[in-house]
Amino acid sequence: MQTITADILKKVIHQRPQNSFKGTFGKVLIVGGNPNMGGAAIMAGSAAVHAGAGLVTIATARENLTAVHSVIPEAMFVDYHDAPQFISLIKGVDVIVLGPGLGNDPTAEKVIQTVFANVASNQTLIIDGSAITLVAQSAALKDAVPTNAHVIYTPHQMEWQRLSGIPISEQNNTHRNQQAQQSLNATVILKKHHSEIYFLNGEIRKLMVGGPAMATGGMGDTLTGILAAFIAQFDASFEDRIQAAVFTHSKIADELAEAKYVVLPTDIISHLQSFMKRNCG
Amino acid sequence: MQTITADILKKVIHQRPQNSFKGTFGKVLIVGGNPNMGGAAIMAGSAAVHAGAGLVTIATARENLTAVHSVIPEAMFVDYHDAPQFISLIKGVDVIVLGPGLGNDPTAEKVIQTVFANVASNQTLIIDGSAITLVAQSAALKDAVPTNAHVIYTPHQMEWQRLSGIPISEQNNTHRNQQAQQSLNATVILKKHHSEIYFLNGEIRKLMVGGPAMATGGMGDTLTGILAAFIAQFDASFEDRIQAAVFTHSKIADELAEAKYVVLPTDIISHLQSFMKRNCG
Amino acid sequence: MQTITADILKKVIHQRPQNSFKGTFGKVLIVGGNPNMGGAAIMAGSAAVHAGAGLVTIATARENLTAVHSVIPEAMFVDYHDAPQFISLIKGVDVIVLGPGLGNDPTAEKVIQTVFANVASNQTLIIDGSAITLVAQSAALKDAVPTNAHVIYTPHQMEWQRLSGIPISEQNNTHRNQQAQQSLNATVILKKHHSEIYFLNGEIRKLMVGGPAMATGGMGDTLTGILAAFIAQFDASFEDRIQAAVFTHSKIADELAEAKYVVLPTDIISHLQSFMKRNCG
Amino acid sequence: MQTITADILKKVIHQRPQNSFKGTFGKVLIVGGNPNMGGAAIMAGSAAVHAGAGLVTIATARENLTAVHSVIPEAMFVDYHDAPQFISLIKGVDVIVLGPGLGNDPTAEKVIQTVFANVASNQTLIIDGSAITLVAQSAALKDAVPTNAHVIYTPHQMEWQRLSGIPISEQNNTHRNQQAQQSLNATVILKKHHSEIYFLNGEIRKLMVGGPAMATGGMGDTLTGILAAFIAQFDASFEDRIQAAVFTHSKIADELAEAKYVVLPTDIISHLQSFMKRNCG
Repeated sequence: MQTITADILKKVIHQRPQNSFKGTFGKVLIVGGNPNMGGAAIMAGSAAVHAGAGLVTIATARENLTAVHSVIPEAMFVDYHDAPQFISLIKGVDVIVLGPGLGNDPTAEKVIQTVFANVASNQTLIIDGSAITLVAQSAALKDAVPTNAHVIYTPHQMEWQRLSGIPISEQNNTHRNQQAQQSLNATVILKKHHSEIYFLNGEIRKLMVGGPAMATGGMGDTLTGILAAFIAQFDASFEDRIQAAVFTHSKIADELAEAKYVVLPTDIISHLQSFMKRNCG
Repeated sequence: MQTITADILKKVIHQRPQNSFKGTFGKVLIVGGNPNMGGAAIMAGSAAVHAGAGLVTIATARENLTAVHSVIPEAMFVDYHDAPQFISLIKGVDVIVLGPGLGNDPTAEKVIQTVFANVASNQTLIIDGSAITLVAQSAALKDAVPTNAHVIYTPHQMEWQRLSGIPISEQNNTHRNQQAQQSLNATVILKKHHSEIYFLNGEIRKLMVGGPAMATGGMGDTLTGILAAFIAQFDASFEDRIQAAVFTHSKIADELAEAKYVVLPTDIISHLQSFMKRNCG
Repeated sequence: MQTITADILKKVIHQRPQNSFKGTFGKVLIVGGNPNMGGAAIMAGSAAVHAGAGLVTIATARENLTAVHSVIPEAMFVDYHDAPQFISLIKGVDVIVLGPGLGNDPTAEKVIQTVFANVASNQTLIIDGSAITLVAQSAALKDAVPTNAHVIYTPHQMEWQRLSGIPISEQNNTHRNQQAQQSLNATVILKKHHSEIYFLNGEIRKLMVGGPAMATGGMGDTLTGILAAFIAQFDASFEDRIQAAVFTHSKIADELAEAKYVVLPTDIISHLQSFMKRNCG
Repeated sequence: MQTITADILKKVIHQRPQNSFKGTFGKVLIVGGNPNMGGAAIMAGSAAVHAGAGLVTIATARENLTAVHSVIPEAMFVDYHDAPQFISLIKGVDVIVLGPGLGNDPTAEKVIQTVFANVASNQTLIIDGSAITLVAQSAALKDAVPTNAHVIYTPHQMEWQRLSGIPISEQNNTHRNQQAQQSLNATVILKKHHSEIYFLNGEIRKLMVGGPAMATGGMGDTLTGILAAFIAQFDASFEDRIQAAVFTHSKIADELAEAKYVVLPTDIISHLQSFMKRNCG
């Protein structure tokens, strides 16, 4: 299994073309944030904004409107209960993140169904957090996962156990992970100490940066926002964009961990712009 | 076409007179921010505050009250559905920004009508974002655009196509742009790679600063706030104040882009005060 | 008329006694902030917290609850429509600031009446902003101004004209200002280029620091918070505490104006702690 | 009585194990924050996040939802009136902080009863602020204090008087304090100039760091969050973790007091990560 190296950054993060506008850098939709976990969707959206996505919208519970506008005024808000607005947005973006802080109640299921039913073939769909668990637990949802879009799952080990049926203790079996991933017809980013990425083309990559200072709530939400922004805005191959995003997230954390005992998701967000500049090819 | 040079800054940004008070530096009203895009109005208002406007009020949807007070406590809030308060404010300010995050639904139309019906001849009215699109699409609104006030449109290229009828591919025809602008009886700031400003006196200016790091959501909202503050507070000619504002916005972005891959609107806002000090004549 | 000099700082801002607790440094109540101007009350409260008041509560409109908790979690919130809570608070604090962002509608009048009716003789009452205007315009309110408490008015020149009847053009007549002030039986801080303080003991002080970079909305709100904190926590004479507060406010602004074209109230707030440390006797 | 020394830091704050995830560092629940004092619960929760707790949830009044998500998006929110969610959370965490900003009305009592009724033997329960006063005043609540959990009280002197019956003037009687503490079957952190910690094993420790710059509202709320995070995430003895948390809180304040006249709770929070890194064993 190959390791992701720092080369990936300059390969993916290019000088922006002079003649460009915000549309050039893609549209990202974050879907998540029930009233209890609004911060998760906000961190995902904020990460996408700071990582350079052209336009970012957060579809979340109505209760989170003010927190969205206060924390990240650059992002737009949509109530995910407002079906016409929500569906129109789903259809109009390049990358959708589904799951940060979404919860696992019937509202969450309905939101997932709405996303699944409206994703188109040119889009990337990142399925994260409780959305993974709900897909794992519901045959109806599993059947509804779009087959035409680029799907990425970002499970931690327990979520991967639920989705793949592989117990955590057996997840060091790369071959078995890959079989499960291929049968999902999706990219899988398995988050753990030394995360692994399983691509549809059969390649597997291992991440050797990142450390225990990142072990704190919201870290995965932030990763989804960076992934979405990198996929939306860059021209490198799908596989390279994903590797660069995952590397960026953990490498910033490593740099900050030199001076901080725990690195918070919002710390990483506020260092994205300078990190990307320093590592721009 | 002449290029705007850094000279414009010291020509416009003067030492404040010792014996002055907040009224000396003008009153600005930002009109925008539906519940989905409250951040846009907040960024415009925050830019106006940081750029030195004496008093700034944000007329926006009721849902944005808390975000306004949290992000920029220096600004005042008005619910744009509260007609008496809203109209009284329109009549009492020096510069009105109409459009950031306003949306394009019937509420937006009604808000635009209210502004148009109450603007007076000594005021400057900056028409931005979806307000431009609505004016372009509605003959009734187009007819209602105030003829007595100083009107500035700040379209990006697609909005300019809608407003002028000139396809984007033909917008390098300066003469045709100017004809359309003159028929609007307004100043036009055409936002693109190397933005152009068309003045009523026939002058045209080109902006050579600014770059692709600015291609992100909310950047135009921020420009409107800076424009409003410069027009409200400075004594230079109308044309010079506009050029200085446009130059300031993009020059700060260029400076920040030395260290940031993407420059966010809120980054520009937080550097306005020091930039203006360094470039004060 | 004597000028306030920097000596006042070390005379008033003393090392805190080792054996002290938050109660030692006094309780401050900010009363203001209608839904349109919640930021004013928040800035006053935040200034009081950063200037060292032991406990700060903000009595404001219900709509401002979230902005209070978000911007200054150190402060407590009370709905000024909740009479029992509000009255109990008024009775329990050392210094009350009445006016920042209060507005001038019947609610504001009622709030003022409630404060006036419940202030006790050991308290200091700072009357600011629209509360000054309302007192000036209503004989009933004027009659209700507490005669037992230490009352401080902080008018700008137009408010002083309303309160004293002295036209702005004649306010350089120190003697006449003083006569009006003495008949109010209150301290008056007349805010203008070179502010003047009229004390009950007949002394008058002039402030030669501060400048036009401070001419921006919310600057007076911030001053009230600093005044309240200094009066609540320090042991110097009443006159000296007021002078030190006024000097601190403007001197910080002067220092920041070295690098900022306009100095915002929130800028001053965030530099209070370090300024007071550097100027502690 | 032994003094707590800086040695305690390296003894407790260890390098995190490489193979760890957020669950490794424990789950913390903050219970507090009525509508008037939402900031207290938010500061406790924010302190717990910054001090390294793996997952932090704030159970508070519904009115505080937005402030929680805005100030500390890393934390989750629960409405403490939502019994099923609240009880499920209580049962699922490692450490519970009960009291910051909770108030002393019937709602507060009910919240306390719910916590007391659902705490289990492997959990730590920190009882703070008005929760101490309510326990002191209600025989029913006192009887309901869990006997199986690790209970820590964090009274200031007036609260200790209420809880122990020992007048403040007699609280320098260590032996009497200890008798009262032992009869409570709990650890007691008596907050005062030179705070004292009374442990169940009979040990008493005195804190010689910290000073009057900390005498400001919210300081105790912040301590509870640090305590919770240290107890939840570290492996040292219960007594050592508590000492390290108390020392960290005051030592950061001392460092900041070199440059700030008053040190705010939010100042301490923002320096936790770097302090813990510098003092990591």
